Amino acid sequence: MSDAAPPNEPPQGEAPSKNALKKAQKEKEKAEKKAAAKARELAERAKKDADDAADVSAGSYGDLPLCGSTDFKPTGTPRTDLAQASENEDKEITFRCWVENARVQSAKLAFLNLRQGLNTVQAVVAASEKLSKQMVKYCGSVSTESTLLVTGLVKRVKEPIKSASIKDFEIHVQKLFIEVKADVPLPLQVEDAERPLPTTEEEQQQEEGDKQPLVSLNTRLNNRTIDLRAKINQSIFVIKSGVCAIFQEFLSKKGFVLVHTPKILGAASEGGANVFELKYFDRPAYLAQSPQFYKQMLIASRFQKVMEIGPVFRAENSNTARHLTEFTGLDLEMEFQENYHEVIRVLEDLMLFIFTELNARYKKETELVRGVYHVDEFKLPESGKVPRIPFKEGIAMLREAGEELNDYDDLSTPQEKLLGKLVLQKYNTDFYTLDQFPLAIRPAYTMPSPADPLLSNSYDMFMRGQEICSGAQRIHDSKLLASQMRKHDPPIDPESAGTKDYVDCFRFGCPPHGGGGFGLERIVQFWLGLPNIRMCSLFPRDPQRVIP
Amino acid sequence: MSDAAPPNEPPQGEAPSKNALKKAQKEKEKAEKKAAAKARELAERAKKDADDAADVSAGSYGDLPLCGSTDFKPTGTPRTDLAQASENEDKEITFRCWVENARVQSAKLAFLNLRQGLNTVQAVVAASEKLSKQMVKYCGSVSTESTLLVTGLVKRVKEPIKSASIKDFEIHVQKLFIEVKADVPLPLQVEDAERPLPTTEEEQQQEEGDKQPLVSLNTRLNNRTIDLRAKINQSIFVIKSGVCAIFQEFLSKKGFVLVHTPKILGAASEGGANVFELKYFDRPAYLAQSPQFYKQMLIASRFQKVMEIGPVFRAENSNTARHLTEFTGLDLEMEFQENYHEVIRVLEDLMLFIFTELNARYKKETELVRGVYHVDEFKLPESGKVPRIPFKEGIAMLREAGEELNDYDDLSTPQEKLLGKLVLQKYNTDFYTLDQFPLAIRPAYTMPSPADPLLSNSYDMFMRGQEICSGAQRIHDSKLLASQMRKHDPPIDPESAGTKDYVDCFRFGCPPHGGGGFGLERIVQFWLGLPNIRMCSLFPRDPQRVIP
Repeated sequence: MSDAAPPNEPPQGEAPSKNALKKAQKEKEKAEKKAAAKARELAERAKKDADDAADVSAGSYGDLPLCGSTDFKPTGTPRTDLAQASENEDKEITFRCWVENARVQSAKLAFLNLRQGLNTVQAVVAASEKLSKQMVKYCGSVSTESTLLVTGLVKRVKEPIKSASIKDFEIHVQKLFIEVKADVPLPLQVEDAERPLPTTEEEQQQEEGDKQPLVSLNTRLNNRTIDLRAKINQSIFVIKSGVCAIFQEFLSKKGFVLVHTPKILGAASEGGANVFELKYFDRPAYLAQSPQFYKQMLIASRFQKVMEIGPVFRAENSNTARHLTEFTGLDLEMEFQENYHEVIRVLEDLMLFIFTELNARYKKETELVRGVYHVDEFKLPESGKVPRIPFKEGIAMLREAGEELNDYDDLSTPQEKLLGKLVLQKYNTDFYTLDQFPLAIRPAYTMPSPADPLLSNSYDMFMRGQEICSGAQRIHDSKLLASQMRKHDPPIDPESAGTKDYVDCFRFGCPPHGGGGFGLERIVQFWLGLPNIRMCSLFPRDPQRVIP
Repeated sequence: MSDAAPPNEPPQGEAPSKNALKKAQKEKEKAEKKAAAKARELAERAKKDADDAADVSAGSYGDLPLCGSTDFKPTGTPRTDLAQASENEDKEITFRCWVENARVQSAKLAFLNLRQGLNTVQAVVAASEKLSKQMVKYCGSVSTESTLLVTGLVKRVKEPIKSASIKDFEIHVQKLFIEVKADVPLPLQVEDAERPLPTTEEEQQQEEGDKQPLVSLNTRLNNRTIDLRAKINQSIFVIKSGVCAIFQEFLSKKGFVLVHTPKILGAASEGGANVFELKYFDRPAYLAQSPQFYKQMLIASRFQKVMEIGPVFRAENSNTARHLTEFTGLDLEMEFQENYHEVIRVLEDLMLFIFTELNARYKKETELVRGVYHVDEFKLPESGKVPRIPFKEGIAMLREAGEELNDYDDLSTPQEKLLGKLVLQKYNTDFYTLDQFPLAIRPAYTMPSPADPLLSNSYDMFMRGQEICSGAQRIHDSKLLASQMRKHDPPIDPESAGTKDYVDCFRFGCPPHGGGGFGLERIVQFWLGLPNIRMCSLFPRDPQRVIP
């Protein structure tokens, strides 16, 4: 194409056509327009330069270029954590923060609410000989949720500032740069995400009556990266992180080894219901519904005490406020010496330790969340002894309260909640253990009870009347296990792939053992008294939701 | 049926038929046989009772019934940890253990090697006035790997015992009960599992020449619950547990929040290759190949520093010694203030802390494993400063060593290993960082380098010349990110499901950030110098293996 005529010139030796003339005219107009625009731009730039020259604050505010780590030698300006603001009275500090809101009060005054973590502070931008009106205007117009780099003086205020978590100090801004500008409008306001979800229909109507905008859980979850910025959500997940840390801390000290068992299984074990199937190269495979078989196989492998924190997958089509298709399991399994109550004791002590430490380490976050939902404190047994109620006694308590139940019936969710209330009345605790469940309603690997062949050495634990843990002594004899599997409803074939390795591992000297599995999101939900478990999962998964 | 004729009697009023007579005769014979058997049994029992009466040790040994937690009031006999045996000289202790082997030396003497955790002790059963020959015979015949309950005196020995980890003491058995008997034969001997795997073909042939039984990795993994009992394996997984604990300890102190991102994704993100597909109710879904998108979305959600420990799934059909289809990812992501080298610094300090603490806390386990494989100590930089080598310099070092490479070429695995050797020679360290990788060989979300548009703000970390971590500064601007995705090879559609939420989250003020992902099993493998990554996964998954 190098020999082709330059564009917009007529082919040589021919008179220009009408069309070509028209085109040339258009091009001319276009060029003139462009020149005019250029002239305007130059004039504007000249004006801006003049303004900047007059702007005493030039260089103290503006949009920073995208941080590409351009300079490999950082400036080294120390950054201050806003939590330390009060220790820097009358000093200059530099900090990154984001904008909760910004407003121009007058030509000479702007206010911003700035946030960093759970801390918020008020910032004042006041025009002076050293600070231009241009800068005041710029600062007061920053879009909400933009990321800023601010330098200012920490000044004590006379009246406590209601709208900020730092009440006795404000920042007198000297420099303010936008590091990353947030688009306008936001798909969800963070302040809306701070408000409680309606817990009943009545409340919902009332709120609508108040004409306050109400953002549904769905909208919040669809815009989860904005939603999660709310203090209530930050607090929930700091607490969730804390539960894991405290769980591991307690069990590590007791000699538990943290393990990671496979989540992809070659066979659908544990009965095969509610399991997700996947394509594993040229064959089917399945997602683990629990680490149950594996943690027991590790006890058979002479790991005397194991714990695991990992995802658990349940293909259950339940759309309730307390079910997820993917949640985090806190699991443990241990050998015991004489009696499975040794295991219950560890579980109870573990939970008491978690509750006590949550109160000690995450008081602020806990109070923040419970405050929004007006939730009562979580009552712990004053004696330090967790009520360990035989299932039979639980049935008796429910019957006394008017429920119709047979001795070996399973409890419905409302009955569990009612029992929680009765236990709270009687023992003044929101946490308790129900022991010796009917054998028929437990998994096939549960050890039958020596006290009654229709009962079993199994237990559940409850918080605010809702189940958070299920556990048992497991059968550690392969013959008994195989026979119980065959008798189970529905029966499990102990010779089937995936199950056989499990059953066989008990042929070579596995000690008596027991354990339990906790749902991490449930512990957090019931600790805080939240209405929906989805609030305790960063990106919850349910039958309707796999995105984001 | 209550009115029916009793069985074996002919119907009334009829003469017995030939068949009935035959049947009656058979029944008679059967009854006689039964009576004879009963008589024999009684005689045997009488003899046994007499023997027992003569057996001074009756009640001090035997098979315990299956532990069903029969007695809800445990005996309360304190159990001693074998690690504390030496503190109990001349005292009686009771402990659970398993049998490494048992042998009858003579009618009056039996020896057992007993194990508990990583500790082994020799036990002596000697006939005396108080201990019967029957008991000696019983104790010396216990099947290997059975679980025992032993009571005995801790006695100092004159000569150190070579075969046990407790060398200065032995147990003089007073009582010995089998809690759980192990089947005979074992599918795999634990002592075989203690031996190293052949690392080269030569070694393998040599071992065969030595006529020592060699158990392949496959056989070991097929019988993993026996294999894992080996001290070397127990040590590997105690160390692995330790790495997780130390990782969390270090990052918690720095303010990182532990998170759990979803493993089931609604769309195959990150390009869509090597991803496992699953059936999610009525639609397809995919297993997360990394928490990459989610941990960045959390930075956009104002979690300033996050860490995650969780499974990572890769549908890669690679059958190498360092690939798994499911492994444990140690991930972190953090905002930084000015330069992504702040992130590298955290990663380097983290790894130095892990190495130092592994040396301090798991010396015994580390030495045990490395001893079996004759592995050198892991060298750390004496200055405490991790060499941070620009990729270009790495290329130059390799060229100098004779490799043919262009400036922007990716390194092959042998080249990585060679570079590891060169770095070891030059800097005397087995751990280092390679920085500023070519942009084209990194993911689309990698921030281009300000120094050279063909390079990027990305890095890998290496242990013994093998990659354990990949990380980078990520693009935190949605427009740049979308454009880089479109330009990427293969291109990624920023508008596609699953990707859109990720790209959009950077529209609302996400700060500059970076992070990295470590393979936990690789850290353990290269720390210990093991020949195969499968040894560092409890139940490894590869294209051929999903069971057990």
